[in-house]
Amino acid sequence: MQFHHHGYVSGDPRVQPAAGIGRGRPAELTDEMDVLIVGTGPAGAIAAAQLAQFPDVHARIIDRRPGRLEVGQADGIQARSVETFQAFGFANRVIDEAYRITEMTFWGPDPDEPRNIVRTARAVDDPEGVSEFPHLIVNQARILDYFLEAARNAPGRLVPDYGWEFVSQRRIEGDHPVEVTLRRTAGDGVGSERVVRTRFLVGADGARSAVRRSMGRRLEGKSANHAWGVMDVIADTDFPDIRTKAAIQSHDGGSILHIPREGNHLFRMYVDLGEVDESAAGRVRETTQEEVERRANEILHPYTLEVRDVAWRSVYEVGHRVTDRFDDVDEPGSRCPRVFILGDACHTHSAKAGQGMNVSMQDGWNLSWKLGHVLSGRAPERLLDTYSGERQQIAVDLIEFDRTWSTMMAAKPEDMDPGELAAFYTRTAEFPAGFMTEYAPSMITGTAEHQHLATGFPIGKRFRSAWTTRVCDANPIHLGHHATADGRWRLYVFADRDGIAEGSRTTALARWLETDPASPFVAHRPEGADPDAWIDAKLVLPAAHDEIDITTAPEVFWPRVGEFQVRDYEKVYSALRGDHDFYEERGVSRDGAIVVVRPAQYVAHVLPLDATAELAAFFDTAMGAPRA
Amino acid sequence: MQFHHHGYVSGDPRVQPAAGIGRGRPAELTDEMDVLIVGTGPAGAIAAAQLAQFPDVHARIIDRRPGRLEVGQADGIQARSVETFQAFGFANRVIDEAYRITEMTFWGPDPDEPRNIVRTARAVDDPEGVSEFPHLIVNQARILDYFLEAARNAPGRLVPDYGWEFVSQRRIEGDHPVEVTLRRTAGDGVGSERVVRTRFLVGADGARSAVRRSMGRRLEGKSANHAWGVMDVIADTDFPDIRTKAAIQSHDGGSILHIPREGNHLFRMYVDLGEVDESAAGRVRETTQEEVERRANEILHPYTLEVRDVAWRSVYEVGHRVTDRFDDVDEPGSRCPRVFILGDACHTHSAKAGQGMNVSMQDGWNLSWKLGHVLSGRAPERLLDTYSGERQQIAVDLIEFDRTWSTMMAAKPEDMDPGELAAFYTRTAEFPAGFMTEYAPSMITGTAEHQHLATGFPIGKRFRSAWTTRVCDANPIHLGHHATADGRWRLYVFADRDGIAEGSRTTALARWLETDPASPFVAHRPEGADPDAWIDAKLVLPAAHDEIDITTAPEVFWPRVGEFQVRDYEKVYSALRGDHDFYEERGVSRDGAIVVVRPAQYVAHVLPLDATAELAAFFDTAMGAPRA
Repeated sequence: MQFHHHGYVSGDPRVQPAAGIGRGRPAELTDEMDVLIVGTGPAGAIAAAQLAQFPDVHARIIDRRPGRLEVGQADGIQARSVETFQAFGFANRVIDEAYRITEMTFWGPDPDEPRNIVRTARAVDDPEGVSEFPHLIVNQARILDYFLEAARNAPGRLVPDYGWEFVSQRRIEGDHPVEVTLRRTAGDGVGSERVVRTRFLVGADGARSAVRRSMGRRLEGKSANHAWGVMDVIADTDFPDIRTKAAIQSHDGGSILHIPREGNHLFRMYVDLGEVDESAAGRVRETTQEEVERRANEILHPYTLEVRDVAWRSVYEVGHRVTDRFDDVDEPGSRCPRVFILGDACHTHSAKAGQGMNVSMQDGWNLSWKLGHVLSGRAPERLLDTYSGERQQIAVDLIEFDRTWSTMMAAKPEDMDPGELAAFYTRTAEFPAGFMTEYAPSMITGTAEHQHLATGFPIGKRFRSAWTTRVCDANPIHLGHHATADGRWRLYVFADRDGIAEGSRTTALARWLETDPASPFVAHRPEGADPDAWIDAKLVLPAAHDEIDITTAPEVFWPRVGEFQVRDYEKVYSALRGDHDFYEERGVSRDGAIVVVRPAQYVAHVLPLDATAELAAFFDTAMGAPRA
Repeated sequence: MQFHHHGYVSGDPRVQPAAGIGRGRPAELTDEMDVLIVGTGPAGAIAAAQLAQFPDVHARIIDRRPGRLEVGQADGIQARSVETFQAFGFANRVIDEAYRITEMTFWGPDPDEPRNIVRTARAVDDPEGVSEFPHLIVNQARILDYFLEAARNAPGRLVPDYGWEFVSQRRIEGDHPVEVTLRRTAGDGVGSERVVRTRFLVGADGARSAVRRSMGRRLEGKSANHAWGVMDVIADTDFPDIRTKAAIQSHDGGSILHIPREGNHLFRMYVDLGEVDESAAGRVRETTQEEVERRANEILHPYTLEVRDVAWRSVYEVGHRVTDRFDDVDEPGSRCPRVFILGDACHTHSAKAGQGMNVSMQDGWNLSWKLGHVLSGRAPERLLDTYSGERQQIAVDLIEFDRTWSTMMAAKPEDMDPGELAAFYTRTAEFPAGFMTEYAPSMITGTAEHQHLATGFPIGKRFRSAWTTRVCDANPIHLGHHATADGRWRLYVFADRDGIAEGSRTTALARWLETDPASPFVAHRPEGADPDAWIDAKLVLPAAHDEIDITTAPEVFWPRVGEFQVRDYEKVYSALRGDHDFYEERGVSRDGAIVVVRPAQYVAHVLPLDATAELAAFFDTAMGAPRA
């Protein structure tokens, strides 16, 4: 965490200095804004937190609720989400209070006494160690707390406007071309309507999204046919795996997905209520808590469950649906999109793969940094076309995965080998952990000509961190953890064997970056700002930290910053840390490489150290025509 | 972190349910209280946080300041302190914002060109891995923030009464036998005096402690003779180790202790101002900032330092002084102590070993759990005699260490081999890390007859944690990290080879613990409370976690707790985790052992599994006559 740039910080350094709109942000909802986000769920809240890092952007976030969410339904936090929390500064706090999944067990009928269940398999979560972050369970309400705290503490000082719901929108002329009608749902004047104008409208308003309907888009897909009762309870039980995630299948085809919850005493059960035809869908929703508990006891036999307290419950049928586009443009590229939807407004599916909140957050992050870049003049409007293009495919993949998983969960034991479910869980772990996302080539994703220079950083996938040693203070640092959600592009320069010796390729690259008119650090540096205001360059050297003299580092990796124009020492790293060698672990060539990374941590390009023309071209496309 | 015991917790689980005094705590300073703490520095703040865990104790903490401390002087956080923060629930937040020391470098005159300094040695911090916690630098003001937050969020809801200073105290008759006169220093009625009555008075009011003077005690020791200028600055420099802790000695005998600070840009330098005779002491304090900077540049030659911003500065002479006792009883045991002093009020020394705040916090923790136990009826009053007895010796040891260290720091290069300072630093690392404290046998520290059963847990030293696997959820858990600052005794039962098989020694012990009238769980269990209300028993088994059926665990290790009387699953552990075997790492006998640990994490006793009589006797002494 960096602070003190502008003088001594006495209080909580997580509270960043206010800037721009954050200096005098209107407390009441304004008539005009740059971005209006509808809904403070996971997708909306992360978008707010990201946009608050762009203090020249005036974003507002509304919610029909009068205030904070008390009990949310989502609770599964995949490793990619914890990585995301790290970027927003609160991963360790979530880890401290969450339940951590390290194993999943599988239960099925005892072959000798089929009425009884027995443990059939035990699978380690993330056996390949695809991430250094854990797989967690924690209530969605807490995640919203943290994102909204991050938004409030960011330079833009963004806080929600509670008690407003979206009614309708229409295109108008002018700078703020989306006119939005809102209705007051809490506070003074409940029921009254109000019209505001925004440059962009973001619908993060859930599966029954009114913003989606206002665009005339629909969730398309197979209608639901399997019903589940879900409950968050405190109970007395002799089931031994009550504190372990478990998939339980009984002899009569019933099943339970069991999820322990944070805090040691609460857990969630998804209890199979069987197939329902469409005409019965309404009736199944009337299933009582007593009936769900009775069914749970049948499935768990010979174990018993006596519920002592019900924190939350629901009955629902699984639907797998997705919209065809996530914005208001039917022919991509024909005009700038002005209305977007994200999260559950775009895709619904079963809760049982624990994906919903996670994918929604990545929708929100993908869209919001792009809005921030366009609105702060760092990128052309057509950057916004990439949002729907990139995220719609992810939703399609998710629904396919979830359909397979929930069908397997609902299969009768005689139709499936007991080990098959466990094997599928382990084999596909990278997907539900959130790391299979791979964006296709676009204006912000390069092509793979030079992929061999950094095989561990597939272009289009998230930058997979590894250990380094920071040269200035010999601290062990996970390199990727510096990629905080500050809206900046990142350039990781991995030096070749010559390091930063005079005349080396890395030194030549640095000189070009510092001085050439085509360099993104020159062409795309805002007036009067620090050299790293929009692009953050880090240098990784193949030598041990105590063999590197940081005072010989090129300026671009050791710049003067802030009010006092003192050196930033935290940009130069040794690839070596104990037994770890970053180059080996991530397949970085000994000839060096440049790895370009997006603000939301996805690898955008891999280039050779001397590919200055390609680097210039990439940034000119991603950031728009250079200023010169 | 455990919560949801009493139903669903939607908000921050760090905010514990209010209880006792916390339910209707008077916002204004009251006329009577159980404990009055004077001073919200590190010693006072930790005492407040601990006492707030005893909601039947009414503690108040006053400070002459009108509010929060803005800039504190102390900044060194040893590993033992981070371990302590973990117990109070905020270690990871401090780690996230602190500077971490992993290496220290040593600089001396270049033999070829003595006017120039060169790096002579590099020492790894904590090379032996004495703790899993890091060595940090962070401003004292932030530590106070965290402790006071913990006090506010604890069941007792303790918040400081700012704007009051201590004037005097005297003994009176009655239940609240200490009459204290206070003066208003901020808020309404500044300058007015007020009299309050307390059961116990705690003076955490610094080196010029008025509470100490009121008892007629004095700091005794050698008068000061070496002057230092200290500054927290943001500066431009070409000194390569500006982000590494460094001891620098120049050819002319000058020296600097250099400490990087949190946030990347700030650092602290202690600059040697030479010897002063007593008559000159006043003059040296007038040394200007320009003079300190000039001297720093001389010592750093050929490197330069250009200060851009001064956050804080001071000039002081080193004093090494300690009081003979830390309470108001001259003949220990003759009567119950009623007034205590702690932290700087008891001991002053140089800042250069980074010890002051750390030792002060352990003073505060040692005293406050004892006060909590006596006032909540868990211990006899004579427990309070052990505070001065235990902590005064620590202060004497500290001053001896600091004298050696600061003398070496101030030595001329020609008087000392360049490697000697580095070697001393590495050799003695356990002391400044805070782990050499070893309490002598007393009513709460047993004798060493059975030490061989757990050689890694020396009786009197802090319980040194190691990895285990929690059986219920296969989570890797550092066993000691469950020892939170909740005021409870802890009993770690390490089973022998027979584990919890029927008829095993561990099962027999468990039955005795659960049912025997002499068992501390029976004799010292408060009416109507959960069995683990005052003593928390954990079971460690030598088998792998997946070979243990938690539902066969004895009740004492798997009790029903809370309003809903559901099982606590977090008391049973496997000693195995990957390649780690707790028994091997901590020298636990395969015949098993009982390790008794104090509320502040010090090992109180080591006993065989069948030593029920000794165990009963230990707790009867520590907790007072049994209720029966």
